[in-house]
Amino acid sequence: MRILLQLTYNGANFQGFQIQNVGRTVQYELERILKRMHRTFVRIHPSSRTDKGVHALCQYVHFDTTMNLTPEKWQHAFNSALPEDIYITSVREIPESFHSRYDCIGKAYRYKVYQGLHRDVMKNGIETYYPYQLDLKPMQEAAQHFLGTHDFTSFCSAKTEIENKERTIYQFTVEETRDGYEFHVIGSGFLYNMVRIMVSYLLDVGQGKKEGNAIPDIIAARNREKAGKTAPAEGLYLEKIYLSEAELREDLPSDIEIITKKNKERITH
Amino acid sequence: MRILLQLTYNGANFQGFQIQNVGRTVQYELERILKRMHRTFVRIHPSSRTDKGVHALCQYVHFDTTMNLTPEKWQHAFNSALPEDIYITSVREIPESFHSRYDCIGKAYRYKVYQGLHRDVMKNGIETYYPYQLDLKPMQEAAQHFLGTHDFTSFCSAKTEIENKERTIYQFTVEETRDGYEFHVIGSGFLYNMVRIMVSYLLDVGQGKKEGNAIPDIIAARNREKAGKTAPAEGLYLEKIYLSEAELREDLPSDIEIITKKNKERITH
Repeated sequence: MRILLQLTYNGANFQGFQIQNVGRTVQYELERILKRMHRTFVRIHPSSRTDKGVHALCQYVHFDTTMNLTPEKWQHAFNSALPEDIYITSVREIPESFHSRYDCIGKAYRYKVYQGLHRDVMKNGIETYYPYQLDLKPMQEAAQHFLGTHDFTSFCSAKTEIENKERTIYQFTVEETRDGYEFHVIGSGFLYNMVRIMVSYLLDVGQGKKEGNAIPDIIAARNREKAGKTAPAEGLYLEKIYLSEAELREDLPSDIEIITKKNKERITH
Repeated sequence: MRILLQLTYNGANFQGFQIQNVGRTVQYELERILKRMHRTFVRIHPSSRTDKGVHALCQYVHFDTTMNLTPEKWQHAFNSALPEDIYITSVREIPESFHSRYDCIGKAYRYKVYQGLHRDVMKNGIETYYPYQLDLKPMQEAAQHFLGTHDFTSFCSAKTEIENKERTIYQFTVEETRDGYEFHVIGSGFLYNMVRIMVSYLLDVGQGKKEGNAIPDIIAARNREKAGKTAPAEGLYLEKIYLSEAELREDLPSDIEIITKKNKERITH
């Protein structure tokens, strides 16, 4: 049978989701537990492969098993064995036709920036310190230029290996918080570093160093060098993964058209 | 000349303030920088030796130096070389008669507890997860039994080596937060694990497992075994260090008498 785990993790002390040659990864921690339970290797499949230092408030992974446990027992088996920076929030059995990556039709990311006279050591690894003055309105307006379906070659890492770089951004908001700003973006999927490059651009706009109106031309250029830097990983949260149109519908205004084409052969982040 | 640093650190990845045989410590990080600058070992003296995992929003250290730098240059020299979890918030030159530990006449600690259906991985190492139901009022009332000058043998680690275990608690408040509780205590000084043992007792009171009214008898017993457990380090913040009566006066109601006897020969935490 196929089991779907919903989980959350603090990315500060991980080398990312996917197993690397060196360092702790979320995948390693999960597969380690499954191996101990099954006495053989069991592969997990995530909805999203988050980078080193990126957090997940909601992530999904599925795996196939011959073990017959209730969802509660699976959850307990994982949570009692996992390190403190990963937590399984729910478990359910799913049809074998379901795939956590291919059946993901959208994702939401949040990016947290705080300001102040000096770095706050208590926010190390969990928010990005940005001491420069920012104007909210230009960032909010600029974010709207990302909406719609575009080839995001300019706004993804030059190392991105997949061919189809077309993604749809449904919503992109910027809000002031008590001590900084939060960027919230919902899209069909995101390319490698895409959220961090878009946020970095918006921060430049907020500082008055770049123009929001230039975004359509930068997108059209399909040239990574046009877009500028990549914001640090520590402020980035994978906030939600949409496994059905209904779920995504709930978080979007009703006049927005949802792209339901599945993500087959896409490797999204 | 004698230099006083005010600093803040996130204790999550430290083995405490003081140099140990194994692991990162705040003292090591500071003395490492001083050694590089002076080409010889320079000893630092803290106001307080925080334990493994305990945070400091305000800590002081002093050291003696022949180098003649402005406070701004000292601050920059440290902050540009320190790891991200320590930050020097201010620097000043002080008389050589001043000692960061002996001239400390009071301290304030805060203890943060959060609740919820499950652990919040983003609060790992920076707040204590306490899922049991708590009643605020009994905790607030019980905390008042700690006020005044007492021998706190029952409420400090049995490993405490200093002889004089008399300390004065000026104020002890408990407040509800958005998702938990905060304990705030101001005293003349605190023994090893003292805040964590008092907070653990109050949490038991909040759960209805212990009686606030029993605190005077437990104090009188001078027996560590009477007081119960020690709350985890991760929720504890050294919040303020009072170097003068005036500073302490500002944070206390005017009817409270301040003990100005200095902490000579005390090793306080």
